[in-house]
Amino acid sequence: MRNLKFLLYEVFDAASLTRHPYYEEYDRKMLDMVLQAAEELARGLLWPYYQEMDRNPPELVDDVVKVHPSVRKTLKELGEGGWIAITVPEELDGQQLPEIIADSCKFIFCTANYSGAAFSGLSDGAARLIENFGSRELYDAFVPNMRSGRWQGTMALTEPEAGSSLSDITTTAEPTEDGYYKIQGQKVFISAGDHDGVENIVHLMLARIKGAPQGVKGISLFVVPKQRISEKGELVSNDVVASGIFHKLGYRGCPIAQLSIGDRNNCRGYLVGEPHSGLRYMFQMMNEARIGVGIGAAALATAAYYASLDYAFSRKQGRKIEEKNPSNPPVPIIEHADVKRMLLFQRSVVEGALSLLLQCSKYVDLKKVGSDEEKKKYALLLDLLTPVAKSYPSEMGVLSISQGIQCLGGSGYCEDYPLEQYYRDARIHPIHEGTTGIHGIDLLGRKIPMKNGKALHLFCGEVETAVVKAKEMPELESYARQLSEFLEKLKKVTAHLSRIQKERGIEHALADATLYLELFGIVAVAWQWLIQAIVIVKVLNGDPSKAEKDFYQGKFYTFRYFFGYELPKAEGLVNRMMHTDGMTVHMNKDWFTD
Amino acid sequence: MRNLKFLLYEVFDAASLTRHPYYEEYDRKMLDMVLQAAEELARGLLWPYYQEMDRNPPELVDDVVKVHPSVRKTLKELGEGGWIAITVPEELDGQQLPEIIADSCKFIFCTANYSGAAFSGLSDGAARLIENFGSRELYDAFVPNMRSGRWQGTMALTEPEAGSSLSDITTTAEPTEDGYYKIQGQKVFISAGDHDGVENIVHLMLARIKGAPQGVKGISLFVVPKQRISEKGELVSNDVVASGIFHKLGYRGCPIAQLSIGDRNNCRGYLVGEPHSGLRYMFQMMNEARIGVGIGAAALATAAYYASLDYAFSRKQGRKIEEKNPSNPPVPIIEHADVKRMLLFQRSVVEGALSLLLQCSKYVDLKKVGSDEEKKKYALLLDLLTPVAKSYPSEMGVLSISQGIQCLGGSGYCEDYPLEQYYRDARIHPIHEGTTGIHGIDLLGRKIPMKNGKALHLFCGEVETAVVKAKEMPELESYARQLSEFLEKLKKVTAHLSRIQKERGIEHALADATLYLELFGIVAVAWQWLIQAIVIVKVLNGDPSKAEKDFYQGKFYTFRYFFGYELPKAEGLVNRMMHTDGMTVHMNKDWFTD
Repeated sequence: MRNLKFLLYEVFDAASLTRHPYYEEYDRKMLDMVLQAAEELARGLLWPYYQEMDRNPPELVDDVVKVHPSVRKTLKELGEGGWIAITVPEELDGQQLPEIIADSCKFIFCTANYSGAAFSGLSDGAARLIENFGSRELYDAFVPNMRSGRWQGTMALTEPEAGSSLSDITTTAEPTEDGYYKIQGQKVFISAGDHDGVENIVHLMLARIKGAPQGVKGISLFVVPKQRISEKGELVSNDVVASGIFHKLGYRGCPIAQLSIGDRNNCRGYLVGEPHSGLRYMFQMMNEARIGVGIGAAALATAAYYASLDYAFSRKQGRKIEEKNPSNPPVPIIEHADVKRMLLFQRSVVEGALSLLLQCSKYVDLKKVGSDEEKKKYALLLDLLTPVAKSYPSEMGVLSISQGIQCLGGSGYCEDYPLEQYYRDARIHPIHEGTTGIHGIDLLGRKIPMKNGKALHLFCGEVETAVVKAKEMPELESYARQLSEFLEKLKKVTAHLSRIQKERGIEHALADATLYLELFGIVAVAWQWLIQAIVIVKVLNGDPSKAEKDFYQGKFYTFRYFFGYELPKAEGLVNRMMHTDGMTVHMNKDWFTD
Repeated sequence: MRNLKFLLYEVFDAASLTRHPYYEEYDRKMLDMVLQAAEELARGLLWPYYQEMDRNPPELVDDVVKVHPSVRKTLKELGEGGWIAITVPEELDGQQLPEIIADSCKFIFCTANYSGAAFSGLSDGAARLIENFGSRELYDAFVPNMRSGRWQGTMALTEPEAGSSLSDITTTAEPTEDGYYKIQGQKVFISAGDHDGVENIVHLMLARIKGAPQGVKGISLFVVPKQRISEKGELVSNDVVASGIFHKLGYRGCPIAQLSIGDRNNCRGYLVGEPHSGLRYMFQMMNEARIGVGIGAAALATAAYYASLDYAFSRKQGRKIEEKNPSNPPVPIIEHADVKRMLLFQRSVVEGALSLLLQCSKYVDLKKVGSDEEKKKYALLLDLLTPVAKSYPSEMGVLSISQGIQCLGGSGYCEDYPLEQYYRDARIHPIHEGTTGIHGIDLLGRKIPMKNGKALHLFCGEVETAVVKAKEMPELESYARQLSEFLEKLKKVTAHLSRIQKERGIEHALADATLYLELFGIVAVAWQWLIQAIVIVKVLNGDPSKAEKDFYQGKFYTFRYFFGYELPKAEGLVNRMMHTDGMTVHMNKDWFTD
């Protein structure tokens, strides 16, 4: 919480947002109260069921998914408290809070119970899609119940043969004369796709209207409820059946369902917006969901970091390495340099990742309340950084939690400590909402070239602004130079790969897109650490209290850790990408056989 | 199996060992038969229970640990087949097979069922300790029953307050006039520490004789059976009680027990060898066990690689990246460059790690059958490489399996595929038999400086021999140069850290020992890949059949992958270590608090 407030108020000046008319009803004190309320809910409502939900995962009984009873309670309380409408405009009965505060609350909830927090987040995203693109009738029929926590919202995209490749979606929608569509198909891996913690499930579903063009241009978006509202206003079955659930490594509290839709030819779907525009609409939700995954990943890694830190303070083992006398008592393991290194690694990842995510949240806010020019600028930056803000916390979160386990040794491997569950839960993040490989292609193949490289240009401008500021501070000058060098290398790699694309084609250019994403992530997080360091050094050069000094010194060492241990990893990636040889393109699949 | 035979016969010329008198009863054909028999046992005896043992983990019922029924069957069959005495001399009724073959069999068993293969491996190691250091009476009383699979052997080191720090062991041994010792204490994390798949458990236990010196110099080794043999020759309780078992992330088929020893003051222990020499004896077993962990880690990652390879061949998703027409059918995902990259990463890790492990096995053999000078040389090389051969497969195996999951996407996260279990099982390897941090300190703090750096000198000699050979082949010349450069960098880092130790003390010198171990691992595996490449290029320059050509081309690309993608990672590590700033030493623990 201390670090969260540091980022919110000292680095990103969230309070300044309340000077915009849209957020003028809030002030710093009120924002603090929201955060405090979120913390209390996290402690009282979510954390108590973290382990229990994992040990008693959902089961499919008679076509209904039974979830842990706390799901109903949580959705009800979050709904009634307005938490599922936290950024919704007041005119739609929402809280109209800044995104950066909403995302901070999401982060707080996810540190306590990632599965438990997933339900309301899904409803929020689904409701927002109807709000933005659906008709008033659709809004009235579905959104209030989703926002109140009585109904569950989902995003139903994936099919057995269409996961990463959405263009292969085959679920069909047949128009009827009564305005609705008849839906038929199969969906898999649908988070919260069915459960008994709510009265109804509202799927935001991609399907293909009969006769639509092939590929992504023929996909439309529908509202497909599990139970539709009859003419009498009653809920009646809409022929959407949970035909299976997936048993998973982690993230077990949240049911991931397989759905059979329209098996009895009696499933009605309601078109959202225009036909064939479904993927465009869905991308809005997906982009938010991707930032949401980043937040969840950073949150789990944060929880793991603090759990391992606690252990390192309390567990005594061994002596300082120069100490030869075995009759001296053992020391807490936090005295060992290697344990401190593991803790600093975790801290540099989790606090760097959170910073990048809140930077993105702030861009969302500025995109919302800024001038037209600012809107364009921040929309572009957000587009560019979304794959990074999703993937860096996801990939590095897994490694960070693994180091958390390592701090505990054998105990980390046992169920008596929460580390092993964090480790299992977190492994979903590099997979859902687009695998890391997909995001690499998105970044290098789509976001970098868009508008003639405008987004990258803006990003470099943001980094350079921080570099210029840091260069003026003697404590930071060398770090600023280091980042500046890596930014140049990133540009060089980008230009090199663009040349490769012209000379050898897109497959060669994108073959190492995942590595490019990794490189971009390291540079982006280094930038975030430099922004933090500018604030940190200012405070340390003042006259902080002992407690404050401890906090800022710790932050400063973590910043140094990132530049000393993590940023150098970019060197190997740069070397690799500057020596493109198309090896993975040329590798013939027959050569994999023994 | 194809790759294993490539390594055994083409790279390490295992058949040549049979020219030594000690192994002269064997020839290539017989060795092949042993491997084939191991493969059949793996398929028929171990693999069928891989998932079942995980889903039905051991439980403690009335002070006895109940394990899966297959454990009894497996131990019996392996014992009767002579597999628990595979390297034991003929004169002790063993098979007297080369270590490199024994380790290959262990590897085969572990690919099928890591937990299932652990029991016999533990018995083998424990029996060997008694053989090497115990009296004839101890041997007769315990070893034959351990080798036949009727009794279980363990290594009982860890205590609640003595894990990484063995000097803090407090289990006591009080001498009696009847020759035995009375043992009292607590042990935790004892693999196969109790179970009902055998008639008796034989602990090789570290304890401190009353009045012994403090620290590691006062630790003795005892045989402490669960049931001792009464004067009438019957098994009677020896006051060793399983007081708990640990529920774990993975490796669930093997019970990890907590033991209460001598609670009723009626536990007898039998001293092995001399008093106060226990740790030295135990290190023999630990060194073997560490190579064994490396083998298990490489085996799990191998199984995961093949599982993800199968999936990549059969799963169809998306089109080639240049393909714009959505009406063309989707391709198997192995056509995508990023999937091939993930597969090559796995393959480069697993085949590189296995190569390093078999290199170590060969050193064990040469140490056994070579001239006195060879014995010394290979003992030193083995000492040096043991922490590397334990840690590289353990750390990289986890990452490799994670990429295996990633190849399967959402399916990799589900229990329908074995990947998630490999991922859970493998996470124990960087922890047990010494954490990676401990091995870093062992390598840099103990193995590098021993005998004035003799071992490192020998290692460099081995690498340089391969470099010289490879430089003569035009296809390998540039790779040889690349490895040679990194070897020089490794030497430079070593010299630098040695200087740091003199100038700033050992804590500073060892602060990044884990990174040094990582660097050493990358260089050592690059060396192994270069050795393989020398053989590969020779075959490819001959006239191989299509199937052979496919195999060797695949190997050659995997070699290239390692040098193109993995070896460059060493650069960042070198940079880091050449800029030692003692950051983790200076980091004050108070600065971790918020």
